[in-house]
Formats: sequence, C-alpha cells, structure tokens
Amino acid sequence: MTTPLADLTPEQLQARLVEVRSDYEALQAKGMKLDLTRGKPAADQLDLSEGLLRLPTAHQDRAGTDVRNYGGLEGIPEIREIFADLLGVDADAVVAGGNSSLTMMHQVLVGLLLHGAPDSPKPWAQEATVKFLCPVPGYDRHYTMLEEFGIEMVAVEMHDDGPDPSEVAALVEDDPSVKGLWLVPTYANPTGSVCSTEVAAALMGMHTAAPDFRIFWDNAYAVHHLTDQETKSADALGLAAASGHPNRPIMFASTSKITFAGSGVAALVASAENKAWYLKRLSYASIGPDKVNQLRHVEFFGDADGVRAHMRKHAELIAPKFAAVEEALSSRLGGLGIAEWTEPSGGYFVSLDVPDGTATRVVGLAKQAGIALTPAGASFPYGKDPRDRNIRLAPTFPTLAEVEAAMAGVALCVELAALESQLAAAAG
Amino acid sequence: MTTPLADLTPEQLQARLVEVRSDYEALQAKGMKLDLTRGKPAADQLDLSEGLLRLPTAHQDRAGTDVRNYGGLEGIPEIREIFADLLGVDADAVVAGGNSSLTMMHQVLVGLLLHGAPDSPKPWAQEATVKFLCPVPGYDRHYTMLEEFGIEMVAVEMHDDGPDPSEVAALVEDDPSVKGLWLVPTYANPTGSVCSTEVAAALMGMHTAAPDFRIFWDNAYAVHHLTDQETKSADALGLAAASGHPNRPIMFASTSKITFAGSGVAALVASAENKAWYLKRLSYASIGPDKVNQLRHVEFFGDADGVRAHMRKHAELIAPKFAAVEEALSSRLGGLGIAEWTEPSGGYFVSLDVPDGTATRVVGLAKQAGIALTPAGASFPYGKDPRDRNIRLAPTFPTLAEVEAAMAGVALCVELAALESQLAAAAG
Repeated sequence: MTTPLADLTPEQLQARLVEVRSDYEALQAKGMKLDLTRGKPAADQLDLSEGLLRLPTAHQDRAGTDVRNYGGLEGIPEIREIFADLLGVDADAVVAGGNSSLTMMHQVLVGLLLHGAPDSPKPWAQEATVKFLCPVPGYDRHYTMLEEFGIEMVAVEMHDDGPDPSEVAALVEDDPSVKGLWLVPTYANPTGSVCSTEVAAALMGMHTAAPDFRIFWDNAYAVHHLTDQETKSADALGLAAASGHPNRPIMFASTSKITFAGSGVAALVASAENKAWYLKRLSYASIGPDKVNQLRHVEFFGDADGVRAHMRKHAELIAPKFAAVEEALSSRLGGLGIAEWTEPSGGYFVSLDVPDGTATRVVGLAKQAGIALTPAGASFPYGKDPRDRNIRLAPTFPTLAEVEAAMAGVALCVELAALESQLAAAAG
Repeated sequence: MTTPLADLTPEQLQARLVEVRSDYEALQAKGMKLDLTRGKPAADQLDLSEGLLRLPTAHQDRAGTDVRNYGGLEGIPEIREIFADLLGVDADAVVAGGNSSLTMMHQVLVGLLLHGAPDSPKPWAQEATVKFLCPVPGYDRHYTMLEEFGIEMVAVEMHDDGPDPSEVAALVEDDPSVKGLWLVPTYANPTGSVCSTEVAAALMGMHTAAPDFRIFWDNAYAVHHLTDQETKSADALGLAAASGHPNRPIMFASTSKITFAGSGVAALVASAENKAWYLKRLSYASIGPDKVNQLRHVEFFGDADGVRAHMRKHAELIAPKFAAVEEALSSRLGGLGIAEWTEPSGGYFVSLDVPDGTATRVVGLAKQAGIALTPAGASFPYGKDPRDRNIRLAPTFPTLAEVEAAMAGVALCVELAALESQLAAAAG
C-alpha cells in the first residue's frame, strides 16, 4: 500500500492496524534475537586487519627511536604523516596517541576544566556556567561526557550540510559562557551529514563572546566512505587560521573503525599553540603512546593510500548492510508519509525519524519482538529527544541476513506505532 | 686512600685536591658522552620480549569476547588474573588498562579533583587547599603531576622500610586538607626501600582527619627483583580492609619494565567501591583498553610464573650494572666518609647522598665531563632538595662498560666536590 496514512479514514486505519498487528504477532512468534544498537565493526571487517598481528618487523621509527621504549609523546613521524595525508593537514599539527580518540577529547576537556586554554580568562571549572552547543541528533558519548563534567548542553539542529551557522552565531555572539561546539563533521553520527566548506567557514569565522571558544571537530569518519564518491572533509584548521581563529578547532580522528576497534591509533590535530598546550598537559599524564602499535599500523598500511584501499574493502562489506536498511524501510514505509530516514554515503549509522511521540514506542515494540535498538533519545543531550521521533540504526555489526530480518521488523514496528498513534489522535 | 676526608689537615686536603683535579682533567679529556639519567630498560632487555611481536594468535579471550573490538573497560580476565597473582590481590579488584600506569594515576587524580571520591565532602578542586605527603627522595613524575594540579606537597623522610608512620600520622590526624600520600612501596624510586608490613599496616590503619584520604600505592617494581631474594610487597589492600579503611589504598602497576616500556599493560587495584568509582569515570573517557595487547601479553607469559621467569632474565642483564655502580662508588669513595648510597635488591635506581650542598656541583662537574646525571633535586617536591645532597643514578639503560666508565667519573666528581666544599669551609 502506498497511500499516505494521513489520507486514510479511521475505518481504513483500523483495518490496516488489524493487519499490521497480525504481522507483528507473527514477528514476535519468530523469537528473534537481533541487535542494531552498536556502531561496531563486524568480525569480517576486523579480519581485514589480520596482518597487524604479525607486525611490526622493525624496532625503530625512521628517526631512529626504539619504538619499544618510553617516550615520544607526539607519536612516531610516519603515523603522523599518514594521518596528515588522510585529514588534509600538516603532519606538524598531528599528535598520534593511544587507542581512543574519545580519550583525547576527554584529556582536552579535563585540561580546559582544570587549567583553561591559553586564551582562557580562567580554568573552566572556575566558571559559574559553561555551555556547549550540540548539533542534534548527534553522538551520545559526547553528551554523556559533557554531562559528567556539568557542562550545560544547548541543542542546535543538524542539517544535511552541518548545523545552521546563523543559529549557532546567534547563540555564541553575546554569551561568553558558551565555550564550545561539538561536531562530527563528516558522515555524522547518526545523520550521515557532511559539514560543507561554507558552514565550516562560517563556524570558524564567526564572532564568539568567549575568547576561548573551541570546536571539537570529531572527524571519526573522515575516510569511511560507503560509495565511490569519497567526500572530502572541510579544511577546519585552514579555515580557522584564515579567519584569525587558529585555536578554535581541535580535530580528532582514529583508526578504530579502520583496523581494530579497540586497538587502533588515535590522533589529535590542532594549531601550534593548542598542540603545545595539549602536549604540556599530556606530559604529566603519559609515558608516551604505544609506539609499537603505531609502527605496526605504519608497516601494515605503508601510506595513506594503503588506508584508502583498505577502506574500500570495508565499504564492500558494509555497503550491502546499509542497502538492506534502505530496502527494508522503503519497501514497507515508502509512500506512507510517516517516516524519513537518511541514506548516508559514509559512516556507521542511519538516522530514522518516525511520527512525533512514537520513537519510544517503536523501540519498545522492537524490543518485545527481540530486536534491540538504541534507546530513543540517545542521540540527544540528556537522552531526551523533545519530539520523541528519532531512532539511530547501526547496521554494521550484525550479518547481512540479520540486518534484513531486523530491519523488516523495525519497519513493521514503525508502521504499527504510527497507526496506533494516528488512531489515538483520531479517537482523542 | 681510606682516611675520612674529615680527618685530613687542610694541607692534606689541598694536596688531595690537586691530585683529584688532575684526574678530573684526564676524565674531561676523554670526551665521554654518557647518560645515567633515564630509568629505562636497555635494548637487550626489550629484546627479551621479542615474541610479543608475533602474538596474539587468538582473537578471543576466554569469555568469548573478540579482543579486537570495542569495550571491556576492566580488561580481559586472563591478564587481570596474572596481575592479581603477581600483586597478591583478588582478580576482582584489578582493572587492566592501557600502556601507562601513570595515566591511570592521572585519571584517578582528575576524578578526585572534578568529582571527589565516594567518601569526599566535595570535589577536591573545590577545596581551598589539598595537600599530599611525599616520602623523599621519591619519584619526580609524582611530584610534577601534583604540582600541575596545584596540590601542595609536604615532604616526609623515606626510610629503609618506608616513611616513618608516626611522622605521617602526626601530619594527617588533625589536618583535613591532607588528602593523600604517594608511595612506591617496593624497591622505591630512587632509594630501593621496601615498605614493611608493619609500616604499611600503620599507614592503612592510622586516623586521618580527611574522610577521603587516599594512598597512591605505586607498586611499579613489585616483581623487579635484582637478587634471588624475591621480596614480597606488603598487602596494602588487605591491611586497609582489615583496619576498616578499604578505600584508602589504590594500587598501580604495569608491565612497562617487564615487556616493552612504551607498549605494556597497566593495572589499577582497589576496593570494590573505588573500582566502581574509577570505572564509572573511565566509562566517559575510554572505548576500552587495547585488549589485543592484553591478550598478546597473556599468550606470551602464560601465567604469573611466566612473568617471574621473565623477570629473572632481566635481573641477569641488569644486576651486573648495579654491581658496577657499587664497585665504582666503593672503590673510590669507600672510607672517605663523604658519601652514602643504596644497594638496592630490586628496582631501577641507586640513590646517592653526597655532602650537603654539593649535589648540584657534582651534577655540574659530571656534565662538564660528558656524563649526564638526573638534575640534583629532581627526587624532591618542586625539584628542591633542601640539603642539596641527593643524586639519583639510573644504570639500566647504558651498556655495562658505559656504566663502569660513567660511575668512575661520578665517584671522582663526588670526591672533587667534597674536597672543594671542605676546603671552602675551612677557609671560610
């Protein structure tokens, strides 16, 4: 059926509800146990990096440093160059760290809270209020970290090309307590949005009341293309420097979804002043990164093109899963006028919007049919989606057959919840 | 000559000075370039762990977790058990982390500053003053971290069996701003002291005005024996629990000086409440430790006995270097009554005390002869040795021949500085 639900009479809706309920009962009877919650690579993706486990063969980086020993806070030169090439930045600006870019973001926030940035009036922990702008829907772990630190979150809407610069500009121009914005610029979690150069330029160039305003540019999916069209990230650092705000962006990236999710190499990229500030903080907290693992990655990839070739193998494995999501949603929900979803050309997620007020119900229905979805609201600050309409789908970890089965079920739950909601509204 | 310098007449001293100056000029003429500053394993020690570079062969820990993927904050069960066995604690109490126990200490301090412990009246950063007791001489990186955070350091003297419990007790019993003590309990840096069970019991049992008093029990050298007498660390956690202060100690350790210094596995051991508190903080900051590296270590060692056997190979390589330090100091300085030094039975350092007011001079003289020593004062809070007498010697990294040459030079510099000082005092 392709008539929009809104055009159906109450009787037609009721009749359709009976059918869909019957489908749902059949779904429950299958006793499935499927999980679409986790933005994790599947085992076959991890297998692509099996070669890492027999590397490195050398003990020294090209500077002659024994990678097995202590030291080398900014990482070995070769891995910094690979990151630089992939991210379109100078190798000088790169710090290659441990296995988690989330940890590097946390370190930066801790430094800002306990010390303040070079351009801060005082440590952020001594400010009465610190606020961050959060494009929504976004990445839940950014939000939980901000909440852990008592940083107030202000939601701004995420569009296909990033947050609306005029909305952001209005929030930062007079309020010095707004000290940051946290963004996944490329193939955003969960929308797949790619921040355009225009939006990036506006964000980097705008006037901010806070002299120490920072944009956490979490470029987690910079090279995680799903199609042949390999979108280039906006040049945040270049744009910021050109507009006189070189310290505004701090970029983060990692190989977590390139090699082994838990055993990759993370990177921070920043202006000379930010980098020196970060390394100073880090010098108290670290004996240096795992340089053996860095050299292991360098030997495995050779260079940035090696990474790019490797990413195409990932795309071959996961693009069919994204296609299965699209197919399941289109075939059941197409034309019904009750749902919208993204068709990302990269990244790890599909963002699904259902009728207002039904996302929690959809997740609940799916759960009762054995399909685990990310809790509704997870992609919003404080876990609260004000419209209760957004659901994040993560199709990479299950097998293709599981994605197909789970997504058919999800689409069914979306329709069922929409029917219930529309009938309740008609009855009310 | 074995007459104490103090028994020499000014004329004898002067004659001796001429001789020693001539020796020193000969030393300078050699144009040496030697370095005794770094507590780092030498390349031959790192070679002992070469097998790590071809491991792991498995992808799963025994719980069936794919070690390559995200997650598992507390570390894989097998490595936690190995640490537990080595440290004499329950595996349940162990969190196995990344490559740096210093990082875990920093994380704990950050958590205390920004959140406070479960038993804290408020976050430490909101206290007017926070003080830590620091047994001296001690580890410079503890001090620099405390200084970075504005925590005031109060020196207490380190003895052969640890700090004097009555001195410590007097400082903590009435002053609630004294919130911590940082100790290397086994083969301490730099003294080689081993905290006795009696001292540990007193520290764990004493009354403290601060309800959230913590002892950072940095057991970095728990299994780093230099002799067949494998000293057991005091059971800090057991003693603390028995005396009703289970949350007082937090233990840290790592394989940094067991396998690869920069690519080992670190561990934190604590009470159930402290551990839950730490993991909660960590959950915001990490995607999990490098479990591949943890499994790599498990496969390499097999079990704790594998680690112990491995440590005996380290001892074979480095014990001769410690013997060379002892030989050089004894042969030149024995009987002169101007210097005392430790003969550690484990760890990485020798602590050398020279006449008051001459340590800086000795380091300077050595430098001018091409021998780099740790700056005088480095083993004291704020880098200031009030008596300017302590020098930390780190003999592991250079070759045995280099240690012999460097230490002969150091002993000469000690005598020269002592002669200068004594003659100046006689003249003054």
